[in-house]
Order: sequence, then C-alpha cells, then structure tokens
Amino acid sequence: MGGIEFLKGHGTQNDFVLLPDIDGRLDLTPSRVATLCDRRAGLGADGVLRVVRTAALGEQGGAGRDGAGPGAEWFMDYRNADGSIAEMCGNGVRVFARYLVDAGLVTADEFAVATRAGERLVRAHPDGSVTVHMGPATVTGSSVTTVGGREFSGVAVNVGNPHLVSFTDGDVDTLDLGEAPVYDTDFFPHGVNLEFVDTTGPASLRMRVFERGVGETRACGTGTVAAVAATLHLAGTDTGESTVDILGGTVAVTVGSGESTLTGSAVLVARGELDTRWWDDAG
Amino acid sequence: MGGIEFLKGHGTQNDFVLLPDIDGRLDLTPSRVATLCDRRAGLGADGVLRVVRTAALGEQGGAGRDGAGPGAEWFMDYRNADGSIAEMCGNGVRVFARYLVDAGLVTADEFAVATRAGERLVRAHPDGSVTVHMGPATVTGSSVTTVGGREFSGVAVNVGNPHLVSFTDGDVDTLDLGEAPVYDTDFFPHGVNLEFVDTTGPASLRMRVFERGVGETRACGTGTVAAVAATLHLAGTDTGESTVDILGGTVAVTVGSGESTLTGSAVLVARGELDTRWWDDAG
Repeated sequence: MGGIEFLKGHGTQNDFVLLPDIDGRLDLTPSRVATLCDRRAGLGADGVLRVVRTAALGEQGGAGRDGAGPGAEWFMDYRNADGSIAEMCGNGVRVFARYLVDAGLVTADEFAVATRAGERLVRAHPDGSVTVHMGPATVTGSSVTTVGGREFSGVAVNVGNPHLVSFTDGDVDTLDLGEAPVYDTDFFPHGVNLEFVDTTGPASLRMRVFERGVGETRACGTGTVAAVAATLHLAGTDTGESTVDILGGTVAVTVGSGESTLTGSAVLVARGELDTRWWDDAG
Repeated sequence: MGGIEFLKGHGTQNDFVLLPDIDGRLDLTPSRVATLCDRRAGLGADGVLRVVRTAALGEQGGAGRDGAGPGAEWFMDYRNADGSIAEMCGNGVRVFARYLVDAGLVTADEFAVATRAGERLVRAHPDGSVTVHMGPATVTGSSVTTVGGREFSGVAVNVGNPHLVSFTDGDVDTLDLGEAPVYDTDFFPHGVNLEFVDTTGPASLRMRVFERGVGETRACGTGTVAAVAATLHLAGTDTGESTVDILGGTVAVTVGSGESTLTGSAVLVARGELDTRWWDDAG
C-alpha cells in the first residue's frame, strides 16, 4: 500500500474523488479515471477532480490550460466517470474549494477557481458550505414537456446550459422519472435538462431533475438556479432568492441581474492513499 | 481530517469497506454502517467488514461472539449495507483474509477466520487471490424456473443456502434478469438463489445469478459452488473442479466429498482515514 493521495467527498450527494496533484505530475489516463470511479472495482464516484496548480499546467501541453485565467492559483481538472474530460461541475467546484481551504492551500475565504469553462468565484463558509458564482440565468421562452402521460408547460432558462422548468402543483414527489420525459426537440435541438418544481413557500422550492444524457440525478446545480429564475420570472421579477430542496439535500440560490449564486454543502468524507499496484493495473 | 482507519476493497467486484478495530473499541452503529455504505454520501460499498481480534469480543457482550471458535485469532464482523448484521460473506472473507496478510496481522498462508456462521479456513496466494473453504455442496433434487417466458429445469443444490442451477444452452448472456424469475415456492419455501449457466469447456462455466432478496449481482460465492456441483452431478460424479466466469470476474471452484473451495480475487484499492466530523455526524 502507499501511493497516490486521494480524498472522497460530495456536494449534495454528487460525489467525487479528489486527486491532489499540486505540480501536475500525475499520469491520469481515461482508463484510471474510469476504474477509480467504478463503484465496485474502484473507489466509486460521479467524477474525478484533479487539483493542480495553474502555474504547473504550462508544462502539460493541452491537458487543461484552456480557461485558466491569470487570477486563479488552482485549476479544477474535472473528469467524468467514464474518463472523458468535462468543462465544469457546480457541485464539484464546491468540494474542490472546500478541499483547498481545509488543506491550507488557500487562505482567503473568497477566491477564484480556474476551470475549462473559465474562472469561478467561490466563497467558503465556516459551516462547511460553499457559495459558487454561476453566471447569468436567462429566461429564453416557454415550452412543454410530457411525463407519465401528463403535459406541463414550463419556462425555458439558459444557465450556460439549457433547462426547462415545469411547475407540478404539489405532485413532484410522485412523478415517474424512470423514463425520459418527452420535450420539443425543435425548441431544444441539443437536448435539455428538465426540472420539475413544487413551490413550498414564499422562498422555498422542491425540485427533481432529469439531466440531459444521464437521467434523474440527486443534484443539478445549474438546474436549481434555473428553477429559481423561472419562479421569479413567473412572479414578474428577475432578482430574488430561494432555497431548493433536492434529493441530495438543500441549496440556496440567489438570482440577480446578470449573475446568480448557488450555496450548498461540500463534504469531505475520507482521505488516504490508493494502492500502487491497483493504480498501475488500472493504467 | 484524521480519524477512523479504513480500507476499501473488493472480491470479484463485491465491494467492502474494512474497518480495522483490533481491540473492538469502535462504536459501529447501524446508522454509521449505512452512511458509510451509501455510494454518494459515504464511501460506498456492499457491506462493512470490521476486523476485530476474537479475544476482544468477550468485552462486547452480544456484539458478535457467536460462532467465533477458539482457533481463529480474527473475527469478521460483517454488516450489510443497510446496517443490519449478517452471518457470512464468501467474497468478503477473501478480502478480509487479504487484509490480515498484507497488514502482517497473520503470518501463516493458511489460517481460520471466525464468522457468525463459524470458522472458515482460508489460504492466501502470492498472486493476491484467496481460497476459502465453503463447506459441503449437496444436491437436493430438481425443480424448474421461468425467466422471460422460457422454462428451465434445474438442479437444486444446498451450500448452506438454497440454490437452483439451470443450464441455458449458450443463452446466458441474453437472459433478461431485470425481473425476478419465477420458481416453485413449494419446493423453496424460504426463497432460492437462481443460477443460470452455460458450459463453455470441459472445466469452465459462464454464470449469471439472481440472488434471493437482492436481484442480479456481479458475484455470488455459494452460487458458483452450486453451479459446479450441479454440473458434476449431471456428469454423474460428485467431485471435480471448474472455473466459473461471472460478471465480476473469474473464480475457481473445487467440489469434493463433503467439502468445497472457492478461489477468487481479493483486491485492496485504497486505505485512509474517515473524517471525524463526518463520522460523528453519521452516528
């Protein structure tokens, strides 16, 4: 035993293996990522977050320099569970930020994290939660979706990716999201993330989400932002805030002019070392 | 960070969190087991293997002394992922044995492990695999099962638990085990584990298994023993050996008079410490 350092953590139950790789020397092949994320043969996770100093990326060619601006000391190299490279993950960046603070790699409470989708400003709170700036949420129209034989009209919102937010009038818990809901492929030619929302109070929502290309998930950061933006839009405003209960926990969202934030849990469960023989075999 | 020591490992992709607890001092509540085995909020596993010195069990009242004979220095306290107590796990005992050898807690290659189902003799091999003595495999009759509209007649085998082994004539990969196969509840009043088997060579089988109360799984140790015993029975003998390809890998089985053994992988993936705050919250 003894070898590659790792941590395991989650943000609203979207879970990650973190690989601290300060100097960018880790040979993180797609095969190793996939084996690491395998929930039975590996550690198991929705994705891998490699933690690398931005200054070390120059030595790595095209491995991830895109989007890393000069202001962010740390780059989040996010990989999907299948080993492919991904741009950004709102739940992942919270866990990433929590690690940097806990490990003493940053000393400020608020700082920028470099990602392939550009820099994200984050703020770590004393209770362990982390706020991430999510960029603008823009209402782009309305469309319809059909789930379990029922048709819902929804609000289309773009949060860097497309969403359709439907209000389910108290029925959100009983919807069958085992099968993919039907949506208007002319309106959403590249697919869409589908949120189903009950209003549970003046500033509280309950939401489930069917993610594009994945299925129902326990947490979708941009989806919760879209849900709050859609709720505010129907109330005749474009700024405000709300909590959103999702399967993986509760998050708090603010929507302002041209800017939104998402605050949610960032939990580190364990840390340790990957077995070197296992790591070599996985390569 | 810093806290409870753990390891993560698997035997033919049946995966476990090991908790070394030499002196039996760990407060392992059902809630902590369930949170630990949660694949998103915890580390994720099919079960927990607490490693405790048999001599330390006397201090723990009823926590696990049953079945621990005088000859086994180490007791495998196995817990299901839901936090309930379980008797034995053939894949788990291999990983348990591998840990004892790697950690230097035993020095012999062959030794006994105490479980709630009695002592199990194990042998650790240099290639990392482990052989476990599985007790007798007894053919108890024949019965039928129906899956996807097809009826198969099978051989009933008891390996401490009930099995029905059906031969699928080259179709094992295409069977739909998403729904529970139908079996004779008069013949198996307490349920049955259902194995579906293709003969792929003179001493090689390919098997899928639908475990009682679980569904299709990637590995079932007693099921592979039952499959080999049934194959030998149909060939007119009651001793022999065979490999069995299952979804989680390949195992080797020997069946003798009143005794069987199972040899399979035992992989340690990682080791580390659980976060103490997380552990306290999980209690």
